[in-house]
Amino acid sequence: MTVLTDQFTEELISIDLHLRKAVYGLRNPAASIAAYHFGWEDADGELTEANSGKALRPLLTLLAAKTVAEEWRAALPAAVAVELVHNFSLVHDDVIDRDEFRRHRPTVWKVFGANDAILVGDALHALAFETIAEADDAHAAAAARLLSRTVRTLIEGQFADIRFEGRTSIDLAECIAMSENKTASLMGCATALGALYGGGSQAHVDALWDFGFRLGTAFQHIDDLLGIWGDPEATGKSVYSDLRSRKKSLPVTAALRSGDPRAEELARLYHSDAPLDDAALDRAAELVEACGGRRYCRESAEALVEEAVASLRVRGLDAAAVADLGELAASTVSRVR
Amino acid sequence: MTVLTDQFTEELISIDLHLRKAVYGLRNPAASIAAYHFGWEDADGELTEANSGKALRPLLTLLAAKTVAEEWRAALPAAVAVELVHNFSLVHDDVIDRDEFRRHRPTVWKVFGANDAILVGDALHALAFETIAEADDAHAAAAARLLSRTVRTLIEGQFADIRFEGRTSIDLAECIAMSENKTASLMGCATALGALYGGGSQAHVDALWDFGFRLGTAFQHIDDLLGIWGDPEATGKSVYSDLRSRKKSLPVTAALRSGDPRAEELARLYHSDAPLDDAALDRAAELVEACGGRRYCRESAEALVEEAVASLRVRGLDAAAVADLGELAASTVSRVR
Repeated sequence: MTVLTDQFTEELISIDLHLRKAVYGLRNPAASIAAYHFGWEDADGELTEANSGKALRPLLTLLAAKTVAEEWRAALPAAVAVELVHNFSLVHDDVIDRDEFRRHRPTVWKVFGANDAILVGDALHALAFETIAEADDAHAAAAARLLSRTVRTLIEGQFADIRFEGRTSIDLAECIAMSENKTASLMGCATALGALYGGGSQAHVDALWDFGFRLGTAFQHIDDLLGIWGDPEATGKSVYSDLRSRKKSLPVTAALRSGDPRAEELARLYHSDAPLDDAALDRAAELVEACGGRRYCRESAEALVEEAVASLRVRGLDAAAVADLGELAASTVSRVR
Repeated sequence: MTVLTDQFTEELISIDLHLRKAVYGLRNPAASIAAYHFGWEDADGELTEANSGKALRPLLTLLAAKTVAEEWRAALPAAVAVELVHNFSLVHDDVIDRDEFRRHRPTVWKVFGANDAILVGDALHALAFETIAEADDAHAAAAARLLSRTVRTLIEGQFADIRFEGRTSIDLAECIAMSENKTASLMGCATALGALYGGGSQAHVDALWDFGFRLGTAFQHIDDLLGIWGDPEATGKSVYSDLRSRKKSLPVTAALRSGDPRAEELARLYHSDAPLDDAALDRAAELVEACGGRRYCRESAEALVEEAVASLRVRGLDAAAVADLGELAASTVSRVR
């Protein structure tokens, strides 16, 4: 991501400035709690320069706009709205999952309490719609429609995620659908909104939605790999984080459903009540890999990125902008190489 | 309210049908949890006929539409959206306040857990915007703008409410501003949206907003009176409910700020750490009344209802519809007589 971040400096700065303007338009305490979440301020309200996240989704919106229009700035309200929805869902998800750290910093509920986190999430959610509605152009109704359906889908994914925790057996299809709902739908929305605000045709909007949705699915698959084999320095999570919490992520589900005889040992480890010690974690990771879960997940992600790029083979898109999106897509998968 | 409910049967049935259609359009588990919240189903998903609430806000939307148009059905999406926002905020507020009962039934978080309650609230919030955006008419952008600003205001009110709990001294102005943000803004939004969808002019929309906002402020004042002197059978709360929880509601704040020497005894009761026993609760209620808090609150509500009705003295509104709104407003205050 670093290369691309350097490449799109102008777009990323625009996103950052517009996002700050929108969030600081909230009244306190909502503004300062949100500013903490975004890494702009510490818990005492002092400006800081923490990691604000990758801004991948709003960048996708602007790059998508560039496939249909030279001027990408018209898509800034949509880019900001998408990033607000993403962050509203992060703040609420952290409450729900009781996650204590995000981007190497204590989560909002951990610092300000769950009540404030619920309210700030609600404020960012409403602010997303306000940002689109205030832009007051011809796209507001279509954008609100797309965004509200996307939030509904996000929530379906989050409900599925919660329900999976209480179940011992998950189908591969259910697991993929959950990733699509939780992650891919918002990335599809991000790119579709870019095409919409860029003035693209319905065919363009649909093509960009397909691109974003497939890329988003690939992105979640890669995240699932990083949840097991990611570098704790980079991910901010512990080694084998997802195995430790017995998360039914794609590599694990694929391994459990592989039909490989070693899957039974993995199932026993996953379904026992005892906390997994280091040896058990090593063994679980080994078994996921031996049963083909790691390879399945990586190959699926690679295939999805190819499909994503193929979605953009429609008439009338700008070749340079399409190439940028292809490069961004490729860099997403290369995170695990 | 009963008389009015009988009077507007057709409108109330329309609201109910459209609201059910929207909510049942959510996927499970969100749909069935929301259906439980609305009193349509019990916790096992069996249809039931519990008290769904008064549907006051969506009724206000439709009656407001009737002041500018014969056909009120065009305003149904707005009425549904307003009711969805109201209920999203109730579900989240119950989590935040740890309230265990609403409309004489266990609250959503109490039955399904806080995580499901957060997610269902989010789903209802998004569904409100979806309902407006899907209606796809000329008013979608303006309605989304008004609704999103209103949610932001609602959240400001809820933040203030939380912050008040940790403070010993509240100004009367702060207390009133909190009621305006938490309650009046959504009622102003409800009536303004009715005028907007009815095709009213900006002057009509503004007048209806004023009406709803003032009525909403009065409504909250009356609720504050009922929180102390309400009949537990009717309110579903314990006797002296707000005193028991030492809530800084308007009658209490007005009494504490009255300058009456007896306010000091009330302050001592309110600021002590010991739970208030029955004798202390009786005494606190007596002191609020002796210091003029009860009268101040009732008189403010009556004045606000008069101002609300006066807001409707603009050219071009339908006299019969204005009379209906006036009657509804009067019935709100008569709850405490």
